[in-house]
Formats: sequence, C-alpha cells, structure tokens
Amino acid sequence: MAEIKVDEKEVLACCGSTHFAKQMAMASPFPSLDHAISIAKDIWFNKVDVIGWLEAFAAHPQIGDSPSSHTTSAQWSKGEQSTALATATDAGLQELSDWNARYRQKFGHVFLICAAGRSAAEILGELKSRYSNRPIVELEIASQEQMKITELRLRKLFSPKTKADSASSQ
Amino acid sequence: MAEIKVDEKEVLACCGSTHFAKQMAMASPFPSLDHAISIAKDIWFNKVDVIGWLEAFAAHPQIGDSPSSHTTSAQWSKGEQSTALATATDAGLQELSDWNARYRQKFGHVFLICAAGRSAAEILGELKSRYSNRPIVELEIASQEQMKITELRLRKLFSPKTKADSASSQ
Repeated sequence: MAEIKVDEKEVLACCGSTHFAKQMAMASPFPSLDHAISIAKDIWFNKVDVIGWLEAFAAHPQIGDSPSSHTTSAQWSKGEQSTALATATDAGLQELSDWNARYRQKFGHVFLICAAGRSAAEILGELKSRYSNRPIVELEIASQEQMKITELRLRKLFSPKTKADSASSQ
Repeated sequence: MAEIKVDEKEVLACCGSTHFAKQMAMASPFPSLDHAISIAKDIWFNKVDVIGWLEAFAAHPQIGDSPSSHTTSAQWSKGEQSTALATATDAGLQELSDWNARYRQKFGHVFLICAAGRSAAEILGELKSRYSNRPIVELEIASQEQMKITELRLRKLFSPKTKADSASSQ
C-alpha cells in the first residue's frame, strides 16, 4: 500500500508550530491523506498547547499584506489571498491594515482567517465582527481557521502522492 | 465618600499581568471594593489577552512549593497554600511535584488553582482530573482560578480601606 510520508520541514510550511510539526513527523507515515488530516486535527486541537498555537499564528503574514518571501508558506499564503488581493481597492487595503493593527493591539496576535476564495470586503467584515469577541473566544476561532489552512496546505502538499496512493489501491 | 485607590504595584501583587495592573490603576479610584472587583473581572476576562493570562500564571510558584521570596505575592501564596502544606506528606508532595511537571509539559504553563482551604489530596485530585482537558479548556479554567485568587488578594489588600469606607458611608 502506498503511504503518505512527511518530514518536519514540510509540515512547518503547513502550520508553524514546531510541536505540531514534530508530532506529525513522528506519526508519519500515514495510510491515507484523510488519515493524516484526522491525526493532524487531533494533534492540533488536543496536544499542541496555546503557546504552540500562538507560534503558528505568528508564522502568517498580516492579511492583506503580500508576502515577499519565497518560502513555501509565503507562496501558499499569497495564493490563498489571491481573491482578496484581486478584489481590494487601495482604500480597502488601508482599512484592512488599520483594523489589523487594532486587532493585534487587542488580542496580541495576528488576525487569522482561511482567506481562500474570500474577497477583501468579506475578510474585513469578519475582522470587524470578530473584533468584539473575548480574547479566549477569538483564540479558539483563530485555531479553527489555522486548522482549515493547515488542511488545505496538507492536501496541496500531498496531492501527487494521494493520486499515486488511490491509483495503487484500486 | 471614601474611595478605594490602587497603584500598579499593589495590583501586580494580586495578579501578575502588567496590562491588568495598568488598566486597574487607570480605572482607580473605585467607589467600593465590590465595584473594584467587578471592574477587575471585566478587565481580566474581556480585555487582557491570552499572553497577559500566561504572564499572570507565570508569576505563581508551582503548587506545593513554598516560595522563599519575601514579596507580597509570595507571602500571600504561602498563606493560600497553608492548608495544603499542613496536610501533605513527603510522598504526597513528591507526587504533586511529579504531576506538576507532567502538567507543565502538556500545557506549557503552571497548574493554577485557588488553593485557599484545600488539602494537598484535593489539589492533587483536581490536577489529575484537569490533566485530561484540551489546552484551551484548561487555559479558561486556569483563568477562572486566577480571578478567584485575584479577588481574594484584592479583598485582603483593601480590607482596612473597606472598613473605613463602610464606616464613613453609614
């Protein structure tokens, strides 16, 4: 049976928590991509502590900023924000930047949202609405958004292997 | 009307979050102790971010350790743990120390409990039971325990002023 294998560095491009990456690498190989994602959710929600969550959040650029770095994570982030960046006006980007600063001031971490397919206006609306949350409520929402991003990226990372895997199991 | 006044340093002995202490000092003076505590709860639960919570947790000695420092906070901590320390055997203290290490390994912060009036066995039971929680659930419980400790300490801090206040308002 074909297997899904990951190393720490690959996982870190999907989620910037070192504890998460180490645990995923230790749990590798996985019999399928769905199994890998199910293990990822268990590690992320049950085993990574809140300091690890904050570490993962800190690995993201501020939403609306186009990362200049050429790392896998930065390039993926650019891709995930492509709808937002394509739909944003200069004034919209400025407002997003102002609200990001307010958000970071209140919560102590970057505003995190799975941006894929979302317009700049939608993202700004979410930011304004989530701004009124208590910090711990917002921490939990951000952790769920991070897991959505992680899942998207794990699927991207393994899509060739997944194809090989499903072909060999037919 | 007599007022309850606090400065940052006094508040820091009650709760080690600098943001909390600053906000309380800015909100001071308070018309009554109950009002001060109600404001404290609002600041702690709604305005201090999770990094501030972790900062406050880090200001506590590990439960079962008798702090050697002579700061107000260390002396209060000693007093709050007096029932636990009086009821603990050497083996009990060792078990508490071992479980504390396991807890800190999983959650990344000290095990926090309002120890006042609780025996060592009760505290160990709580620690074992809470150990199975998800990190974010445990963060919220620890924040509630911190607020109980903060309230106890604010009441201790202001008890003479409170008496003066109620005397003058009669």
